[in-house]
Amino acid sequence: MEKVKVGIVGGAGYTGAELLRLLVNHPGVKITMVTSETLSGKKLCEEYLNLKGKTELIFEPYEKEEVTKRCEFVFLAKPHPNSFKLVQELFGKVRIIDLSPDFRFSDGEEFKRLYQTPHLAPEFLKKSVYGLSEIFSQKIREANLVANPGCYPTGIILAVFPLVQAEIVTEEINVSSISGFSGAGRTPSPNNLAYFVVDNIRPYRIGNHPHGAEVEQILRRATGKGVKVNFVPQVAGFERGILNVIFLHLKTNVGEEELFSLYQKTYQNAPFLRVYCAGTFPEIKNVVMTNYCDLGFKRMNDRVLLIISSLDNLVKGAAGQAIQNLNIMVGFPEETGLV
Amino acid sequence: MEKVKVGIVGGAGYTGAELLRLLVNHPGVKITMVTSETLSGKKLCEEYLNLKGKTELIFEPYEKEEVTKRCEFVFLAKPHPNSFKLVQELFGKVRIIDLSPDFRFSDGEEFKRLYQTPHLAPEFLKKSVYGLSEIFSQKIREANLVANPGCYPTGIILAVFPLVQAEIVTEEINVSSISGFSGAGRTPSPNNLAYFVVDNIRPYRIGNHPHGAEVEQILRRATGKGVKVNFVPQVAGFERGILNVIFLHLKTNVGEEELFSLYQKTYQNAPFLRVYCAGTFPEIKNVVMTNYCDLGFKRMNDRVLLIISSLDNLVKGAAGQAIQNLNIMVGFPEETGLV
Amino acid sequence: MEKVKVGIVGGAGYTGAELLRLLVNHPGVKITMVTSETLSGKKLCEEYLNLKGKTELIFEPYEKEEVTKRCEFVFLAKPHPNSFKLVQELFGKVRIIDLSPDFRFSDGEEFKRLYQTPHLAPEFLKKSVYGLSEIFSQKIREANLVANPGCYPTGIILAVFPLVQAEIVTEEINVSSISGFSGAGRTPSPNNLAYFVVDNIRPYRIGNHPHGAEVEQILRRATGKGVKVNFVPQVAGFERGILNVIFLHLKTNVGEEELFSLYQKTYQNAPFLRVYCAGTFPEIKNVVMTNYCDLGFKRMNDRVLLIISSLDNLVKGAAGQAIQNLNIMVGFPEETGLV
Amino acid sequence: MEKVKVGIVGGAGYTGAELLRLLVNHPGVKITMVTSETLSGKKLCEEYLNLKGKTELIFEPYEKEEVTKRCEFVFLAKPHPNSFKLVQELFGKVRIIDLSPDFRFSDGEEFKRLYQTPHLAPEFLKKSVYGLSEIFSQKIREANLVANPGCYPTGIILAVFPLVQAEIVTEEINVSSISGFSGAGRTPSPNNLAYFVVDNIRPYRIGNHPHGAEVEQILRRATGKGVKVNFVPQVAGFERGILNVIFLHLKTNVGEEELFSLYQKTYQNAPFLRVYCAGTFPEIKNVVMTNYCDLGFKRMNDRVLLIISSLDNLVKGAAGQAIQNLNIMVGFPEETGLV
Repeated sequence: MEKVKVGIVGGAGYTGAELLRLLVNHPGVKITMVTSETLSGKKLCEEYLNLKGKTELIFEPYEKEEVTKRCEFVFLAKPHPNSFKLVQELFGKVRIIDLSPDFRFSDGEEFKRLYQTPHLAPEFLKKSVYGLSEIFSQKIREANLVANPGCYPTGIILAVFPLVQAEIVTEEINVSSISGFSGAGRTPSPNNLAYFVVDNIRPYRIGNHPHGAEVEQILRRATGKGVKVNFVPQVAGFERGILNVIFLHLKTNVGEEELFSLYQKTYQNAPFLRVYCAGTFPEIKNVVMTNYCDLGFKRMNDRVLLIISSLDNLVKGAAGQAIQNLNIMVGFPEETGLV
Repeated sequence: MEKVKVGIVGGAGYTGAELLRLLVNHPGVKITMVTSETLSGKKLCEEYLNLKGKTELIFEPYEKEEVTKRCEFVFLAKPHPNSFKLVQELFGKVRIIDLSPDFRFSDGEEFKRLYQTPHLAPEFLKKSVYGLSEIFSQKIREANLVANPGCYPTGIILAVFPLVQAEIVTEEINVSSISGFSGAGRTPSPNNLAYFVVDNIRPYRIGNHPHGAEVEQILRRATGKGVKVNFVPQVAGFERGILNVIFLHLKTNVGEEELFSLYQKTYQNAPFLRVYCAGTFPEIKNVVMTNYCDLGFKRMNDRVLLIISSLDNLVKGAAGQAIQNLNIMVGFPEETGLV
Repeated sequence: MEKVKVGIVGGAGYTGAELLRLLVNHPGVKITMVTSETLSGKKLCEEYLNLKGKTELIFEPYEKEEVTKRCEFVFLAKPHPNSFKLVQELFGKVRIIDLSPDFRFSDGEEFKRLYQTPHLAPEFLKKSVYGLSEIFSQKIREANLVANPGCYPTGIILAVFPLVQAEIVTEEINVSSISGFSGAGRTPSPNNLAYFVVDNIRPYRIGNHPHGAEVEQILRRATGKGVKVNFVPQVAGFERGILNVIFLHLKTNVGEEELFSLYQKTYQNAPFLRVYCAGTFPEIKNVVMTNYCDLGFKRMNDRVLLIISSLDNLVKGAAGQAIQNLNIMVGFPEETGLV
Repeated sequence: MEKVKVGIVGGAGYTGAELLRLLVNHPGVKITMVTSETLSGKKLCEEYLNLKGKTELIFEPYEKEEVTKRCEFVFLAKPHPNSFKLVQELFGKVRIIDLSPDFRFSDGEEFKRLYQTPHLAPEFLKKSVYGLSEIFSQKIREANLVANPGCYPTGIILAVFPLVQAEIVTEEINVSSISGFSGAGRTPSPNNLAYFVVDNIRPYRIGNHPHGAEVEQILRRATGKGVKVNFVPQVAGFERGILNVIFLHLKTNVGEEELFSLYQKTYQNAPFLRVYCAGTFPEIKNVVMTNYCDLGFKRMNDRVLLIISSLDNLVKGAAGQAIQNLNIMVGFPEETGLV
């Protein structure tokens, strides 16, 4: 396997650390550059003990010439909203996988409404491909700019996409989601201070979390149908993992076997999508530290369909899916370097 | 405050321990007897360190004559299905608060269907009062047999009762509930072994947990309206607390202020019911080790109403509400001995 | 029970909140004033939901005249080093219980060395009494200024004091201590961010934590003997509780029964000190949310004695012991308002 | 890399699951057989979701002919005391790595005293090699029977071995160790029920845990010097990880730089041993899900030396080290298949 040259811009955060954890063991990747302004000059293995013996790289300040010279692919892992300028500088010179929300929306106005920031690089919105590997793999293969999905939307969209597409369910999607505190990053906040999250379930940003709108937009893009997502995010006291409990309404009298077949068929080539038998359900424990998204479902009655999906927010919900997208872009088997 | 003489039948379980923790500090109660077959002869304060210096009582085997002689009130805290015989022996001689599900249903056949056990004392079903203090206090005051509510139903019924009664919502109630592992008791099971619950959210008994049917029956009894509950219980890695995320559908165009007023009015005399301003929500942390049930709500759009309720499953969901019921039965202020 | 008028200066922190949680249920206390600069004007029960229905007080800015006019006793619960000025202003006008380290040491130079801050009120060092209720109760009774002990020192001193006094052990005290993250307060730090503490045991400040020196000084003061403490503090992912594992060396051939008798005798009037039979040991779970300090011990061989002590760092290690000291100062039974 | 044929006897437990998790990604191993009486006939990937897509193997009942025919190496992962008979049947036909304590001691009488079971295969005690990879690698290379070390002894022996060998410390070793609950296996017990371990630190088996004696015996075997271990094991509420806090007494005036050099030299060829600079210390978080054992130390004063070691009890403390030993036995690089 010939190695591709890969850089990470923003190696100091949760996502950067997770990319590094996975990429050092990826047989098709040579990490050629990791940037961080705050850690510049420090050895990676001094900051991340788990990299000891695996890389001698040193954090460097970002310089666009260096990035384009030394990398074929680059992961953008800086906090929102740093990717506007980076994409403007790097697009076309290296292939980009952006882990921020900056290029997930096709409309700059919607972005602005959701993130309370004007979009400063709207010319690239149409050029970006939404990196949900199981649904957009054909476009990802050719993309020069992949907008890696949000952690919650990954699990919600994968759960409902086949049903929306097949017009089996109404447009109303009610979702109660629990995330580990790593979803709140490392900058101190009520969603990652131990006082607030340990032994607690804490609802937050209900009604204005942008991931609800992300699900709506992507489902519309993928299926042509409109949906309305009522999204209830909550944070809990474990580090990793998301569980989405989704209530849908059936439009047609479709049985559980038929639903199972539909999932099987939709995801037959998706190595990281596991569909459970009707009536059995995923749990956080089964997916932590893996790139899997697990799905379980049950018809609660004639009308209400329950789906539960689960994934590791740092892996399938961020760094793992980014690497899955890299594999697709390069032409590696999708599972390369992932468990 | 003159003290009433109170006994506990079944002092060795989670619920018995919690009743003792609270009752030793209750200014209106004298504990006169605590039974346990397994711990018989042992001092309470040897089994429960927190009782040291507060009681010199010794666990005794159950004997009906002793119970009726020494107690005016008795809490039944043995695991299901032990209460049939106890109620047959004690009814009318002492006033009973039963913490098991045995007398919560008015229909022995429904009980049998839900608990896979024939009901052996159906003659008392009509004589029992459902002990949801905030809704049935008038009947509780006179009751000789109170069926203390289930932990999940307490929080769900309190959240939706005013809306169902006022015919504001449709009959469909979708609930995603998380409970601490103490809800699974102390007998080893996948819902209380550390391996299964720590750092996990684990759905269980979806579609056949009897608490869904309990909510349906009690709401029908309290309001005369039928509802259909789709109940999704999950267990998490903390000991205490329940959070219920409830999706309802509005039948009428009612605003958040009106909803707030409705809650305020319904629960104006309920010292343990806290209603939050629209758009703010309870969390487990706020209710743990208290007898409060907290409620928050938000209109997600024209049609969907979200309610979140929270309580401590061992306090308001079990022992605390049982003591609240005792207070009502005796005529004590409802808060006596509770925080 | 006639009520004493009590104020809290610094009601916004962990310790202030814990004092309030306990004092609202104290039958001998009327809280007359709670100060906080940051929360000034807010109702206490809006900041702390658990106070709802229990107090209508409002946070006020600190003003010395108000404090001295409205309070007989005042708890100082502001972060270090705010107590210098407060004590200078309030001493002699109200009786003070200071929960900071500012008046625990008898020597301003040692304080400066340990806390890297000059001591600005050294004239009061000799007037303060170290508030370890079980050892200094006679002096506490008369004190106008009580320096409430540190959380770790409380459990360590209580464990070794009788042995040092009786000259049974050598001067070397090796201690491995685990604390819940509430010991690190609420200001974001690596010891209270979920990322650092959840699913972790994290050693910190080994060799320069001032609580080691606090133990040394107080044992010298209480017994006249010198000791050397090697203190290894660690933080873990639970909120409350400390477990101290203490290795001592025996100077004399004393048996476990004799040791048990010595503990029993020393603490015969101490309602919150529980000594376990030799070979059984305390655990965090037994003391959380209580004011108990539990002790267990075992002779490991002819020479090495193991003692394990445990307490809730926010109760017996802070607010609970402060209230215990208040009870002693007023003449209330020591247990009043505490469990 | 030519693959060796490897079997696992006892694939249903915690250790078997962990061996499988690691071995399916080991580039030099072909798993040819996994036995389990309870799971016989079931696909591995049905029992362990993480194996999906990685193996089509089915659990089989144990049959010695099949094992010897299909395997070159076999891991014994059944609970104690099942290995006596297995070793008698398999020794000499396949090379054995036994993860039980059955062949760790050289003396059948000592085994009997510690495990309260007579040793039924004492003839193999002298033929077994203690599988502490960093110390006994030369013997492991040739061994036909490797007794994989206990989880606690691994971290304690690695921490003190160089100092005992160099006669720098006295014979007294005081150790306070915290383990995750996975150390207690999956059979329900007070050390793995959520009720007992969550939000708790729980001392257990103090004075009679056989791992103290294991450390004593192996240090004697490795260095010829006698030591006395006072071992204080405790269990906490996280799944994985051990932290050992070790107090030693210096016999000679050796500085921290010299100590660091001694560690560096001793472990210069040990890829999984990380020594920290004096005064910095390992934590559980740094080693979880890895095969590393981390060491930190500090001279507390002229006489007392503190060492803290940390490892993942399921990886370096069990399955990881077993694979490290396999690598040594085969001649693979020691890190193969491990992170």
